[in-house]
Amino acid sequence: MKLARFSISNAIHWGVLSGTTLDLIDGDVYSDWELSGRRVELDTVTLLAPCTPTKAVCVGLNYYDHAREMNLSLPAEPLLFLKPSSTLAHPGGFIEYPTMSENVHFEAELAVIIKKQAKKIPAAAAYDYVLGYTCANDITARDLQLKDGQWTRGKSFDTFLPVGPWVETAVDPHTLTITLEINGALRQHSNTSNLIFKVPELIAHITQVMTLYPGDCILTGTPPSKV
Amino acid sequence: MKLARFSISNAIHWGVLSGTTLDLIDGDVYSDWELSGRRVELDTVTLLAPCTPTKAVCVGLNYYDHAREMNLSLPAEPLLFLKPSSTLAHPGGFIEYPTMSENVHFEAELAVIIKKQAKKIPAAAAYDYVLGYTCANDITARDLQLKDGQWTRGKSFDTFLPVGPWVETAVDPHTLTITLEINGALRQHSNTSNLIFKVPELIAHITQVMTLYPGDCILTGTPPSKV
Repeated sequence: MKLARFSISNAIHWGVLSGTTLDLIDGDVYSDWELSGRRVELDTVTLLAPCTPTKAVCVGLNYYDHAREMNLSLPAEPLLFLKPSSTLAHPGGFIEYPTMSENVHFEAELAVIIKKQAKKIPAAAAYDYVLGYTCANDITARDLQLKDGQWTRGKSFDTFLPVGPWVETAVDPHTLTITLEINGALRQHSNTSNLIFKVPELIAHITQVMTLYPGDCILTGTPPSKV
Repeated sequence: MKLARFSISNAIHWGVLSGTTLDLIDGDVYSDWELSGRRVELDTVTLLAPCTPTKAVCVGLNYYDHAREMNLSLPAEPLLFLKPSSTLAHPGGFIEYPTMSENVHFEAELAVIIKKQAKKIPAAAAYDYVLGYTCANDITARDLQLKDGQWTRGKSFDTFLPVGPWVETAVDPHTLTITLEINGALRQHSNTSNLIFKVPELIAHITQVMTLYPGDCILTGTPPSKV
């Protein structure tokens, strides 16, 4: 099932997408929900990022093919960093290029959207806390990331987290092709089968540290890029 | 003026503290507000962290005396990192010691509470966006901070951001004594006159990167500690 978030006449809705038709949901998708009976066409709405994060928790090096390519040893545990909610950008939106950076870079990622509050969740129960999956781009000012050492500034500019276009609830997150193109040129191509830490392990690790809330995102890392 | 946030019978209020009396405010403190006419005594309420952050933006090395003591060169610009809203702890509350750390450390800091949405604000206008100031503790799992290189995990455990007990609106933020004690033993003692980057410069720098929202916190860095 595809869950989309969108606006119509400045009102925000969630809906179920079937073909080009959206069946509107009463309320949000983080608890039991029902269809409202109202139906609209996809091309009459403005899609929004299909999540409402208090934070995006991101993972560093997490693709086997990336580690091999860079001759890096595999991490013993996930390396975490954060993007604040102010980075969120909507499908089809624009990235604001910061004047203080001269090297803004893409990082295609599989995003996990959290359904309910999660604290110290064992990996075996992790999927109970997942609403579904969507695409994300961990936009990064590479020069500032390297200059600062800490990755916060380089990854926290407004609009540096495009997410969407919708959440897919029924998909195996570890068998997905992941690609990124710029103006038709392929720049990243891999498969989530290359993930070093799988989704349940990430949820278990992150929720040992911090509580995840409904609508929070996990960015699962980025595959190699052909720069 | 002292602005406190507190709960009475599970309802959350803001109020103005005078002596031991709280005059309740209608609504919140992020826009024009009025007193409700209701009054309660401080010892009948449960104080809450006097802010509602979407994020806490924190600054690394920012005390001259700390830099001198460590023989560190002064930073050319503020080094930023984040604590997520899930770290917030309330006055008089407990810190959860993480089982994965063996070295949980204090960092007393002056916190700036943001009053209204702020993006690309020049230093000269920065004070217009400040609600006031309060105390914060940037609790840090030092071993994990050093192990990871990125500071996110070490600083993002639930309860790792005690804030409060209330916001002081009428104070010069650069003439304040800052101290931290553990069981009566003085562990940090300095003055905010030692801040390398002052509050207006911090707001200008941070809002060049990311939008700050009402209730967001800036943690201005920590002075030297006598470990």
